[in-house]
Amino acid sequence: MRCFLLIALSTHSFGHNFLSPLTTLRSAHSTLSHAFTRRPPYTTIQMEETLRKALAEKQSAVDSQGNAVRALKAAKAAKADVDAAIEALNGLKLEKASIEKQLQATVSGGGGDGSLNREAFRQTVNNTLERRLFYIPSFKIYRGVAGLYDYGPPGCAIKSNVLGFWRQHFVLEENMLEVDCPCVTPEVVLKASGHVDKFTDLMVKDEKTGTCYRADHLLKDFCNEKLQKDLSITAEKAAELKHVLAVLDDLSSEELGAKIKEYGITAPDTKNPLSDPYPFNLMFQTSIGPSGLSPGYMRPETAQGIFVNFKDLYYYNGNKLPFAAAQIGQAFRNEISPRQGLLRVREFTLAEIEHFVDPENKSHPKFSEVANLEFLMFPREEQMSGHSAKKIPLGEAVSRGIVNNETLGYFIGRVYLFLTRLGIDEDRLRFRQHLANEMAHYAADCWDAEIESSYGWIECVGIADRSAYDLRAHTDKSGVALVAQEKFSEPREVEKLVINPVKKELGLAFKGNQRMVVEALEAMNEKEALEMKATLESKGETEFLVCTLGKNVTITKNMVTISKEIKKEHQRVFTPSVIEPSFGIGRIIYCLYEHSFYTRPSKAGDEQLNVFRFPPLVAPIKCTVFPLVQNQQYEEVAKVISQSLTTAGISHKIDITGTSIGKRYARTDELGVPFAITVDSTSSVTIRERDSKDQIRVDVERAASVIKEVTDGRTTWADVWSTFPHQSSASADDE
Amino acid sequence: MRCFLLIALSTHSFGHNFLSPLTTLRSAHSTLSHAFTRRPPYTTIQMEETLRKALAEKQSAVDSQGNAVRALKAAKAAKADVDAAIEALNGLKLEKASIEKQLQATVSGGGGDGSLNREAFRQTVNNTLERRLFYIPSFKIYRGVAGLYDYGPPGCAIKSNVLGFWRQHFVLEENMLEVDCPCVTPEVVLKASGHVDKFTDLMVKDEKTGTCYRADHLLKDFCNEKLQKDLSITAEKAAELKHVLAVLDDLSSEELGAKIKEYGITAPDTKNPLSDPYPFNLMFQTSIGPSGLSPGYMRPETAQGIFVNFKDLYYYNGNKLPFAAAQIGQAFRNEISPRQGLLRVREFTLAEIEHFVDPENKSHPKFSEVANLEFLMFPREEQMSGHSAKKIPLGEAVSRGIVNNETLGYFIGRVYLFLTRLGIDEDRLRFRQHLANEMAHYAADCWDAEIESSYGWIECVGIADRSAYDLRAHTDKSGVALVAQEKFSEPREVEKLVINPVKKELGLAFKGNQRMVVEALEAMNEKEALEMKATLESKGETEFLVCTLGKNVTITKNMVTISKEIKKEHQRVFTPSVIEPSFGIGRIIYCLYEHSFYTRPSKAGDEQLNVFRFPPLVAPIKCTVFPLVQNQQYEEVAKVISQSLTTAGISHKIDITGTSIGKRYARTDELGVPFAITVDSTSSVTIRERDSKDQIRVDVERAASVIKEVTDGRTTWADVWSTFPHQSSASADDE
Repeated sequence: MRCFLLIALSTHSFGHNFLSPLTTLRSAHSTLSHAFTRRPPYTTIQMEETLRKALAEKQSAVDSQGNAVRALKAAKAAKADVDAAIEALNGLKLEKASIEKQLQATVSGGGGDGSLNREAFRQTVNNTLERRLFYIPSFKIYRGVAGLYDYGPPGCAIKSNVLGFWRQHFVLEENMLEVDCPCVTPEVVLKASGHVDKFTDLMVKDEKTGTCYRADHLLKDFCNEKLQKDLSITAEKAAELKHVLAVLDDLSSEELGAKIKEYGITAPDTKNPLSDPYPFNLMFQTSIGPSGLSPGYMRPETAQGIFVNFKDLYYYNGNKLPFAAAQIGQAFRNEISPRQGLLRVREFTLAEIEHFVDPENKSHPKFSEVANLEFLMFPREEQMSGHSAKKIPLGEAVSRGIVNNETLGYFIGRVYLFLTRLGIDEDRLRFRQHLANEMAHYAADCWDAEIESSYGWIECVGIADRSAYDLRAHTDKSGVALVAQEKFSEPREVEKLVINPVKKELGLAFKGNQRMVVEALEAMNEKEALEMKATLESKGETEFLVCTLGKNVTITKNMVTISKEIKKEHQRVFTPSVIEPSFGIGRIIYCLYEHSFYTRPSKAGDEQLNVFRFPPLVAPIKCTVFPLVQNQQYEEVAKVISQSLTTAGISHKIDITGTSIGKRYARTDELGVPFAITVDSTSSVTIRERDSKDQIRVDVERAASVIKEVTDGRTTWADVWSTFPHQSSASADDE
Repeated sequence: MRCFLLIALSTHSFGHNFLSPLTTLRSAHSTLSHAFTRRPPYTTIQMEETLRKALAEKQSAVDSQGNAVRALKAAKAAKADVDAAIEALNGLKLEKASIEKQLQATVSGGGGDGSLNREAFRQTVNNTLERRLFYIPSFKIYRGVAGLYDYGPPGCAIKSNVLGFWRQHFVLEENMLEVDCPCVTPEVVLKASGHVDKFTDLMVKDEKTGTCYRADHLLKDFCNEKLQKDLSITAEKAAELKHVLAVLDDLSSEELGAKIKEYGITAPDTKNPLSDPYPFNLMFQTSIGPSGLSPGYMRPETAQGIFVNFKDLYYYNGNKLPFAAAQIGQAFRNEISPRQGLLRVREFTLAEIEHFVDPENKSHPKFSEVANLEFLMFPREEQMSGHSAKKIPLGEAVSRGIVNNETLGYFIGRVYLFLTRLGIDEDRLRFRQHLANEMAHYAADCWDAEIESSYGWIECVGIADRSAYDLRAHTDKSGVALVAQEKFSEPREVEKLVINPVKKELGLAFKGNQRMVVEALEAMNEKEALEMKATLESKGETEFLVCTLGKNVTITKNMVTISKEIKKEHQRVFTPSVIEPSFGIGRIIYCLYEHSFYTRPSKAGDEQLNVFRFPPLVAPIKCTVFPLVQNQQYEEVAKVISQSLTTAGISHKIDITGTSIGKRYARTDELGVPFAITVDSTSSVTIRERDSKDQIRVDVERAASVIKEVTDGRTTWADVWSTFPHQSSASADDE
């Protein structure tokens, strides 16, 4: 519970997550802030409020006691009286300091030095990651570019492993149709999807230097700074600032601007005044071809490439639903001022699935395979009532209607399996449902897989039932019908509304306007038509708005017949619904780094050694080969083993340096290498497991195959441990 | 030989290949045209010349005989004489027609309908590729964008297999350091590499409509059109046009413009006049961040991301050379008007290796592993002397100095193995050496892996020894020294040149100019200094140019001492050489499609069936599972087998449609699926191999493991065929 509290508060410092410009874009209604839904439980809030009040009271007590002391002195009162008053003042000051300390602890993360610990932990992890080239700030020798990072060798291997497993777990096991579309995208496509008009963040400019800032960031920073550092503000002011943080994502350009003015917020570096907020499109713009007349953008997501190919993919699938298409690729967002290191970057790898399904049947044949999974879910009711996430069996979540449908539930289960198999700690993984007004109006249901990191709960996978929205948008813009057909085995009788305007009567009544009235009558939807029918039957006439004429006309009973007829239909044509699991690969990998990292004391106890406990599936290198001492015989054996490992397709590294074996183990523990083969004889070798530091003894010929079996997941280290002789406790780590 | 001739001519139609803007860029000297080096052997040229002359002679004969006939008629000559003259005229006309036909055949591709066959073959392959969604023109529903293509499901699977094998074959087996850098690149990086200033093609504009064309394309099209369709041009004119084609890549902007004017070339669609040619930068430009003040580009190659990281990677490798870094990723080139379908595109996947090596030691420890390989090589001497490529053992090519060094040779061998294992036909693969003046001035040697396709010989992999150029360029621009150190085990005595200007004498002679003269003397390189030393010793004085003074001064013997001294050095600091194999993945895949495609008659003989003979390594799906008839029992067995295949990680597809088994085989042959499991009983099944159509019978439990072994390459189909009972000749293909 303590841990949750600690993190929940920290989410205030970044409302905006990797999918959120998209969520905003795709939503027609404004959305409630995530920050609001994730605010700390009532007890913490109450405690802070109480402390602020106590502090304010104590401050006035200090003030009046101070006045009393001054008055006594001015009145030349007896020294004993003055001293007593001063002592009382000092006592009050001490009490005030104590309250301040409590308040400071409360606002900075649930008590104690929580936030400091998080910062320190993050610093340690990031130092290790950068020192061992898991990542490198891009173009470092040219002082880099904010929001761009390289994956260095171990990071690149991990990314490749994660993507490989993603392909295996989703594309292969689910027979998905994988596609690979270009990043360069012509404007018309992103106009249809809405990105050209709405994929924006609000920006303000330093009016003198022209430096740009995200308007909501400045306001957020101001509020957080006040709340965390200015202990003098009243409980009322604190509540107001918190309210601003809560509704931050919903503020219009005008509201944001007004708040910035009201609080007197200036440019952080120069203290210059700021411009009014205005929208900045987050897409990298470019021009296709030499003419300068074909604007294009670097895609902000991979999904559109799939939608525009729906027709071909549906045909490829034998004109059958459901089917899923998938794409892995780069996406680009020209962030105004990237923060949060590896979590908010300007170029990143997305892996997206678009599962197309008949809107009338969202069951999933394999749902039973995931129905018994039980993990942390955070349904919207729990969020609204201030509770925290709780474990719910997935089958129950679907049957109780918490999760909208089986297919959505199936993907939630598959995402859970994917993430935990990668090594994400299941206790720091939750599926949070979007609130009703946080979702796009057309969406049926939406869940985010959120992973807890030192930055708080991070949205890493979004799983949304987006209904028919995207296919319809491209159908409208392109004129190509992106639809599916269901052919009936036998023709079905369907009740159809038939509107028959009686042209003769209408002609008499409306003369030259007849055509407009006829068209307006024919364009009525079922509800309107049935209402008219009822009115005509009861009253004989009705007023009817003809938009093309811009006025009401009177329609009488003899001018139109409205009836329901039975028609035979041979097929049903419809726009499929799409269920979209969308994975931010870089974010998942970063969270995996944090979840896998730990330190342990060196044997001598004089330093803390870093370890990444990556599962073999993810580990950048599966195995190292160390000759115990520099010796030609051992090196030959090492080469033979290396050759077998290469043949078996196991990434590994030989280290023949003279460094002590303990140092060599430590060096590879820090890369997360799960196994080390140490050559200490020409007939048999030891294999050491990273986390337990346990060692077994294996014949040279068997070494590669043992590693292969345990890294492929065909056996476990526990099995291996029980099969082979153990190496004596004269552990090589000692050296 | 016929085939070679046929293709050699076709290369005239596209001088520019995927690396060539780069080659041009990286070259300081202008380069000889590839077209020149690849022109058809002398015999073909001679034949064409002879035919053109014969045609011209025959034409005059026809003309004079025509005159003769007219003269006879005018003179009212005897009918028999007139008839005889007409008969002779007709004979001459027939002979002329025959020569025309031969000439037509010669100029259009080595005789017969060769070019037509190539076109038809390409059309058939491409129709199949597009119909089966190996690729899809991107954004098709919006009428697409030239030069952008999607990989559909089978294409995407093949790409993923090719990249997976590339990682295994290069990164894993050679312990390379893989990195993954962003596509968005700040200007400074591409300024240093030269791309901002020189990565251009020459463009002309339709002066009225503004439509843009590549200047060299228009000139090339004009020449080819004339040569192939206008049989009336003289042999001299034909030679001139061919010369233009040969030097096309070397023409300056002015020369190109002059030729376009001279030939009266106009805009192809409108016949409007054209602008003068001007350079167009091929990079997609964008802007990083919101200010508009940080220009950036989409990278035109992945190499620069590696170069800028050299220092970190060298450190990661324990400050040891040699080592290689590798990167797979998207690259972007905003072609003026893309042609050649999948071969010249605006966005493509590159896989690049930068192998850093001590320039003083380019041996390779594993060279012996490839020394015995023998394949088509096309050294520059063979090209200059008009010969064709020939098989040379790689070891010999290196020992005879044809290939510059062992490391370059090693990579040529590894590339050969890579391509042929993918399924590239070794008879249509050659390694062509760049001519001396086709290479950049700093390059030590350069070989292209060229694959023959219906478009001619296509550069698919470039393997260049680029010396220290790239690291030096980034050292200069960034100020960060990208160098390596060799620490000597014992200090070495090194002879060093020491220049000691005698300031007193110089001061007397040059007064206020003394400092400039001193600096100029100290700045002499070794050669200059030794020459001065010699002159001073022999003549007592010498003239010496001091640039900062802008004039010569007289230096006498007493003004400077120049000597060689022995100094002790503890290490050597140097810029490593880089050997760069660069793979155009899309081009390799396209050539693979053409090399793998064949047709064979259906059993009934009424149609030609398409087959891709992809090796299992590459095949998009390794296996299909077919219940022979629609039957619940068989479908159950199929599901069990499918499950085992999934567990074994084998991509496969079940087809339970009622279609005849023959049709189902044909459908998957067209996707290149190597094996089909047909369920025709509940205990055992048949496995059919795609190309031989051979079938074996295997127990249900063994089916998945047989497929696994043969697709993993642990056994061959021949072995499998000899192990299991054969299925009777009542081949299911018959049905």
